[in-house]
Amino acid sequence: MSNRNPLPLDEDGDDKLHEECGVFGIIGGDEAAAVTALGLHALQHRGQEAVGISAFDGTDFVTRRGLGHVADNFSTGDSIAELPGHMAAGHVRYSTTGGAGLRNVQPLYADLASGGFAVAHNGNISNASALKAELVQKGAIFQSTSDTEVIIHLVATSRYPTMLDKLVDALRLVEGAYALIVMTPRGMAACRDPLGIRPLVMGKLGDAVVFASESVALDVVGAEFTRQVEPGELIEVDFDGTVRSHRPFGDPPARPCIFEHVYFSRPDSIFNERSVYESRKHIGIELAKEAPCDAELVVPVPDSGVPAAIGYSQQSGIPFELGIIRSHYVGRTFIQPSDGARHAGVKRKHNANRMLVEGKKIVLIDDSIVRGTTSMKIVQIMRDAGAAEVHFRVASPPTGHGCYYGVDTPERSKLLAGRMDLAAMREFIKADSLAFVTIDGLYRAVGLAKRDNACPQYCDACFTGEYPTALTDLARRHERDAQLVLPVSKPVHKVA
Amino acid sequence: MSNRNPLPLDEDGDDKLHEECGVFGIIGGDEAAAVTALGLHALQHRGQEAVGISAFDGTDFVTRRGLGHVADNFSTGDSIAELPGHMAAGHVRYSTTGGAGLRNVQPLYADLASGGFAVAHNGNISNASALKAELVQKGAIFQSTSDTEVIIHLVATSRYPTMLDKLVDALRLVEGAYALIVMTPRGMAACRDPLGIRPLVMGKLGDAVVFASESVALDVVGAEFTRQVEPGELIEVDFDGTVRSHRPFGDPPARPCIFEHVYFSRPDSIFNERSVYESRKHIGIELAKEAPCDAELVVPVPDSGVPAAIGYSQQSGIPFELGIIRSHYVGRTFIQPSDGARHAGVKRKHNANRMLVEGKKIVLIDDSIVRGTTSMKIVQIMRDAGAAEVHFRVASPPTGHGCYYGVDTPERSKLLAGRMDLAAMREFIKADSLAFVTIDGLYRAVGLAKRDNACPQYCDACFTGEYPTALTDLARRHERDAQLVLPVSKPVHKVA
Amino acid sequence: MSNRNPLPLDEDGDDKLHEECGVFGIIGGDEAAAVTALGLHALQHRGQEAVGISAFDGTDFVTRRGLGHVADNFSTGDSIAELPGHMAAGHVRYSTTGGAGLRNVQPLYADLASGGFAVAHNGNISNASALKAELVQKGAIFQSTSDTEVIIHLVATSRYPTMLDKLVDALRLVEGAYALIVMTPRGMAACRDPLGIRPLVMGKLGDAVVFASESVALDVVGAEFTRQVEPGELIEVDFDGTVRSHRPFGDPPARPCIFEHVYFSRPDSIFNERSVYESRKHIGIELAKEAPCDAELVVPVPDSGVPAAIGYSQQSGIPFELGIIRSHYVGRTFIQPSDGARHAGVKRKHNANRMLVEGKKIVLIDDSIVRGTTSMKIVQIMRDAGAAEVHFRVASPPTGHGCYYGVDTPERSKLLAGRMDLAAMREFIKADSLAFVTIDGLYRAVGLAKRDNACPQYCDACFTGEYPTALTDLARRHERDAQLVLPVSKPVHKVA
Amino acid sequence: MSNRNPLPLDEDGDDKLHEECGVFGIIGGDEAAAVTALGLHALQHRGQEAVGISAFDGTDFVTRRGLGHVADNFSTGDSIAELPGHMAAGHVRYSTTGGAGLRNVQPLYADLASGGFAVAHNGNISNASALKAELVQKGAIFQSTSDTEVIIHLVATSRYPTMLDKLVDALRLVEGAYALIVMTPRGMAACRDPLGIRPLVMGKLGDAVVFASESVALDVVGAEFTRQVEPGELIEVDFDGTVRSHRPFGDPPARPCIFEHVYFSRPDSIFNERSVYESRKHIGIELAKEAPCDAELVVPVPDSGVPAAIGYSQQSGIPFELGIIRSHYVGRTFIQPSDGARHAGVKRKHNANRMLVEGKKIVLIDDSIVRGTTSMKIVQIMRDAGAAEVHFRVASPPTGHGCYYGVDTPERSKLLAGRMDLAAMREFIKADSLAFVTIDGLYRAVGLAKRDNACPQYCDACFTGEYPTALTDLARRHERDAQLVLPVSKPVHKVA
Repeated sequence: MSNRNPLPLDEDGDDKLHEECGVFGIIGGDEAAAVTALGLHALQHRGQEAVGISAFDGTDFVTRRGLGHVADNFSTGDSIAELPGHMAAGHVRYSTTGGAGLRNVQPLYADLASGGFAVAHNGNISNASALKAELVQKGAIFQSTSDTEVIIHLVATSRYPTMLDKLVDALRLVEGAYALIVMTPRGMAACRDPLGIRPLVMGKLGDAVVFASESVALDVVGAEFTRQVEPGELIEVDFDGTVRSHRPFGDPPARPCIFEHVYFSRPDSIFNERSVYESRKHIGIELAKEAPCDAELVVPVPDSGVPAAIGYSQQSGIPFELGIIRSHYVGRTFIQPSDGARHAGVKRKHNANRMLVEGKKIVLIDDSIVRGTTSMKIVQIMRDAGAAEVHFRVASPPTGHGCYYGVDTPERSKLLAGRMDLAAMREFIKADSLAFVTIDGLYRAVGLAKRDNACPQYCDACFTGEYPTALTDLARRHERDAQLVLPVSKPVHKVA
Repeated sequence: MSNRNPLPLDEDGDDKLHEECGVFGIIGGDEAAAVTALGLHALQHRGQEAVGISAFDGTDFVTRRGLGHVADNFSTGDSIAELPGHMAAGHVRYSTTGGAGLRNVQPLYADLASGGFAVAHNGNISNASALKAELVQKGAIFQSTSDTEVIIHLVATSRYPTMLDKLVDALRLVEGAYALIVMTPRGMAACRDPLGIRPLVMGKLGDAVVFASESVALDVVGAEFTRQVEPGELIEVDFDGTVRSHRPFGDPPARPCIFEHVYFSRPDSIFNERSVYESRKHIGIELAKEAPCDAELVVPVPDSGVPAAIGYSQQSGIPFELGIIRSHYVGRTFIQPSDGARHAGVKRKHNANRMLVEGKKIVLIDDSIVRGTTSMKIVQIMRDAGAAEVHFRVASPPTGHGCYYGVDTPERSKLLAGRMDLAAMREFIKADSLAFVTIDGLYRAVGLAKRDNACPQYCDACFTGEYPTALTDLARRHERDAQLVLPVSKPVHKVA
Repeated sequence: MSNRNPLPLDEDGDDKLHEECGVFGIIGGDEAAAVTALGLHALQHRGQEAVGISAFDGTDFVTRRGLGHVADNFSTGDSIAELPGHMAAGHVRYSTTGGAGLRNVQPLYADLASGGFAVAHNGNISNASALKAELVQKGAIFQSTSDTEVIIHLVATSRYPTMLDKLVDALRLVEGAYALIVMTPRGMAACRDPLGIRPLVMGKLGDAVVFASESVALDVVGAEFTRQVEPGELIEVDFDGTVRSHRPFGDPPARPCIFEHVYFSRPDSIFNERSVYESRKHIGIELAKEAPCDAELVVPVPDSGVPAAIGYSQQSGIPFELGIIRSHYVGRTFIQPSDGARHAGVKRKHNANRMLVEGKKIVLIDDSIVRGTTSMKIVQIMRDAGAAEVHFRVASPPTGHGCYYGVDTPERSKLLAGRMDLAAMREFIKADSLAFVTIDGLYRAVGLAKRDNACPQYCDACFTGEYPTALTDLARRHERDAQLVLPVSKPVHKVA
Repeated sequence: MSNRNPLPLDEDGDDKLHEECGVFGIIGGDEAAAVTALGLHALQHRGQEAVGISAFDGTDFVTRRGLGHVADNFSTGDSIAELPGHMAAGHVRYSTTGGAGLRNVQPLYADLASGGFAVAHNGNISNASALKAELVQKGAIFQSTSDTEVIIHLVATSRYPTMLDKLVDALRLVEGAYALIVMTPRGMAACRDPLGIRPLVMGKLGDAVVFASESVALDVVGAEFTRQVEPGELIEVDFDGTVRSHRPFGDPPARPCIFEHVYFSRPDSIFNERSVYESRKHIGIELAKEAPCDAELVVPVPDSGVPAAIGYSQQSGIPFELGIIRSHYVGRTFIQPSDGARHAGVKRKHNANRMLVEGKKIVLIDDSIVRGTTSMKIVQIMRDAGAAEVHFRVASPPTGHGCYYGVDTPERSKLLAGRMDLAAMREFIKADSLAFVTIDGLYRAVGLAKRDNACPQYCDACFTGEYPTALTDLARRHERDAQLVLPVSKPVHKVA
């Protein structure tokens, strides 16, 4: 009787890569947990599924965790009052993989022989499975399925005498990406992996020292930006305010994640010593140079396409107009009526400004294309609204490779650029023309002359497939798959 | 020990007038409740505090109500399955005044002698108290404190024979603003008050007829826009699809609310036969003509200031840039740490794009100023971020008068324009210059030559103080206050 | 593969008639709501599904309602603090018929022209539908499906001048059973129907006057028992402590419900000036005389069979022993495993004391048999535990007729005694012998010589089918059914 | 203005020792989790605060835990459907000490190198702190504060090759009381400590093997009682139904807890090969012989005093009557009105049957006296109801010593018998006479000639102070307290 929409509806109209986490910590200030809640709130775009804060009052650590947003869990006086003390650290996460509910929500905590140990981690340890297997063999009992717990067990069983040595001993065994904030009864430590893949910055709030994934969190809590934590740097802060910097991994060339500039970080953050907004606007400028277009309107796909669209408009002289209106009351999936409401899913989020676009030639600007499903629907919405021509420009190179450093990526076979060439992609999204910024255009937009192919200045593996670290767990999984010995096993325990 | 922020923090940074409601109805279609949920979702900006849907399956009416957003209450299959049938109507509301919890959430329903009667109402009845006193005197028992229930009791006690006559009989006694959707076992009726103060449009979804507060709801459910319900028009729709239009109040000149163009409606809606986005952009153009400014950047106060800022930029040639980044993870009030986090409340929502504005002369564009508190903080944020000059342009005339037609307005003494002249307002918000669009500039922007002062084409009472209807309850309250006979009495019953 | 139990499992093992409500009120004391909560808690056995309390603080009425037990809703200081004042009344109810959620939970409240009016009602109005139809015809709008609301509308539309006259005017139109507690801004009124079918007692707590369905509630709150409210009596109590008794219905002979002695009231209550425990023990004594039995153990079906079993044991000389152990952790239905767990449902509540009954001849004593399903299972459990003979004695006559006075009774066709004679009943429950106390035995046990058949001293309609009032709604329903004009209509509005 | 009750109100009127746990397990049957839920429900009296079930489906273990009763957490089909498989074990617990919420709720689970390991434990390990300190020193990370987790870590780090050897290796290091049910991918193991302090029985349900703390759980699930698990016995059950019994601790004389007969077990259970009901009735008989009394009524303190009261009545010939009526709607603490409601707290649970006891000489029978507060109030209630004399007989010896084997006991200084002699106790509870059964009377009642003082047949440490095991943690705490070195430390981590 009715024609069901033949496409799998991506209800949210969200076809983005997602940063998995944000971290925040403060030592030496009053109301440390309240500041941490505010800081995490400013990092909410880095993870919306769960949040946790641990605080230390000089004697005890207390941890509070919850599913959902920071405001859902830490906006009441009661929730903050449970977390007294002058040191606190917190974490927002994008998803709780493994169905383990609150067990995987960070900060993770353990009572070690040397005292309490709490850790918040942004990133992904690419040899976690291998390390875990060894630890369990020796009698370690894991309480979560989080890769972060591997670090705690490595610290717990390290034979070095001091906490700093134990931590460095542990991190030397670890491979992958991490920005860590650690609390012990003696103070706070913050650390980035040797390549500095994930971001971490440092600030000052009165006498207190603050760490955060992005500088915007410093702004929101009223702290001053000091500097970024350098790739491979481990910074110790004591309760008396002493700050000590260590370089336990020597000084390899850094490879920060270039996608922070493209999409992950907020435009008002400073990443790798450059304004993210500036980078995005310049990608639009590069794009206008590399892929000009005979259009009457530059229309951003809101909100992430706006800065590049401003750049494209300024460079091309074509007026910038809101041809798509985005609703911010989105989140859950709705029941889809079967009749009439074609594309309602995506329209709930993105609706055409019909009287503007009708009869016009438009160029759409989006930050990236992942699976392509949303792009296709947005093109269709523009056509349904009467656009005469719909051109599509993308403010990043084609995303053809998965990320193993703490970003949720679909399998390569689901990435549009992983399975199609440019012509096929244009055909898939049904645009009149399609262009991506080049990899060199992207490097220019972030302020460099070009990509140094011998030794790239950023991690750009999602575009190039060049991974800057070993990927031990992945390699072993491929070996096993090749031998057809075992399917990837399910977790052996689940908390219902 | 610490200096508490001396300003009363408006945590949300929200200093807006708020439309109190949105309504949606459908008759003659499959899955009427699911379509209604989607339609209300598209009207969510008109009311976020409560939502209700009533459905009629040919025999029974079922109503489901909840606090919070549409998605919180109507996104599951179970919630929709409880509401079967081919006719449904729903309502979102901004606040549940009177603390009466779910009792005041619409649609309201009553079993009348003639059968079931459900009503969803956007607007405000300005003689509700007077009518209620008379009804109670005759033995009527009210279950809510909503003015809408007065209509139901007037219908229930009308001596006219048919439901249509009863409804018209009731509405003739009522004064004020209303856009109503009524359901009875015989069909649906939709109606706007004689002046058409509140909006209501009509559409077609397959064979079904759809009504909604704004055209964007038609877009999102996939319906076609037919026309607006005319001021003073009452439209009956039967289950067989017959549509009958009535004009029970004759044909007085219309006075739709001009603030729908300024702020209430979504930019992708069509109001009073004109694109709202177009109106807003043209206000910016008028503003650039009336109040030019020597600035380097046009910076919108997001999101509502964006269309006018685009107009201002296009007219003036000054580049449009995102100097303020808005977080969309806002909602609840956070615990305010006492130290350091000066302006954290407003920064949670609006943060400066520091590296952009530093050292620059900027002109901020906002849609309106109500109390002025947010404007003051935003100017301060820009200065803290290093802006060299901060000019402020407002895309509406000064808001100096309360609204009694279904909009939540502060008392006149709290309206910035109700207590200060332009120079004092500029001083209060500490801008380098301040200008508002003129009332004629506003009328030009919505496509008219100028305001017809003898018979204004819109209700603009919030700017001019010229109220197009009697305000009986208000007049009586003033009389009583003048006689010092009685304080405004508390409600005599509360549900805890 | 497995044999599903062929009987419909009555999971709770509860095969009882249920009193529908309990009421409690206090005027003139401190912390009126706290006392009311405690009093309702002592009446919890009269209704477990919902509870409400209204309090009056001299200006406002506040009502708080909830589903579940008193302790679930009124055990916190916050819940009580919302209900300030020196007058309060409350209600527990067995079920919320009509699926209307909290709308039907009492006390009901209305703002009348004369001021606030709150009412708590135990009983059932047997012409409620007829009265409601008339009221709706005149324009009344009902907010609940409760018969009690009819009283409020009759009061609201009465033409008498004083509240007392209005109330009496309303009650004269009403037929059936009621024990009412009414609150107005002038004080409290308590009233029993002319026949006094449902119970109501009066007590004194310091200077305060207290009313309750049973005397046990007076004990628990520490009040002194004054006397019962007489059948047909209306007692007014003012805030200054003045108590006025009225007899608005003349002085018809009383007919209190004899089942209060059999099962409804708690054994430590005084009903109709007699100890309920004493009555129950004497039923056991009469039963031992009328239906002796060659058994080795008297085994009560706990808890309600215990007093009669003590009487039976004392009269017969057969030892009283706990052959069945009852769990008090019962309530919800459990998932029934298909294998092995035969009779697990009833065993969850009643388990055999196997080592006691094995090889013994036992006589089971229960207070009543309604559907017979639990009795059958209990006999089986005793046999499974090895009892040599199982005799069954019932401490009430056969229950063959429905109740229309506020007791939840199955249809006559589901009452075991409504569809079988004694021999068939014995066969159904598979006992070695079965006997019920005679109706005259029951009257003797409650202290009378015998039943006065011309003018019975109690309402015993459930045993005899002799209803002491007209049953207008039932008669009309039968008429309609006979004419096959209309099915019993569903409610026209439901709140999901 | 009002006289506050001078006594600390024990709101619940509960002055009992509490068993801390009950366990249940099944292997080899369909719907293992549903049977486990039913079995735990029958053990609900052993722990009401939390419940958990783990199930194994041949591949994965799934655990579901919750606060509150079994019925609150496991009565829905959904909750059971999450726990598929033919092996399951569960646990009810009295309290979640340590405020750790669900972390301490059993079964506990760990992924060991040898595979999954789940354990449910009833009892208390009296050297847990000492063992935990050693384990943490070696790098173990504890996730709960439960003593049970010590067993898991000892198993995880055991150097023995097989799971059975590892478990025995672990248990040899452990001191105290335990009845354990363990699940691994290979099957189930059930085990009692060498002295068999805590109970555990074994049954058969079709082909499945069932373990439970009490035989009543076997009855309720429909299983056949096989035998008790012997003290010091470890029983392994494989999925093919093979049952192997081990005696890893040799054959020391058993010391089961005699308080299971006095109060903990349900009267319809069989403990140590004897009917609990029979034991309790015989305590009443012994008591009547040892401490006769010139009374007119034997009144049990319900419910636990009933069997002994029946014995006392049968032996003495004084009639058994319900002089106290117990409400089963108890649980939460209520707000105590300050006026009038003297003793309302205890009356909520225990109310006098005034018309029965007025003017009578009565003898009250209770199972035990712990703090004495409830006994005092009950005596007072009887006097307030007009009893002429109130004698008190206790069906256990004076409880003067704490329990360290899994029973929640107040400190010795709060035990009435720990701080007073008989005369003072009588004075405290204000009875006309007071007597306890003798220790030899108690041993006779459980079927023995007398207590063997050289080698007692039961653990009766709560009466005698003779503890059958070392109490290492307690001894060390005393040492530390003696040296005044350290206060008892707070836990270093809390989950808020």
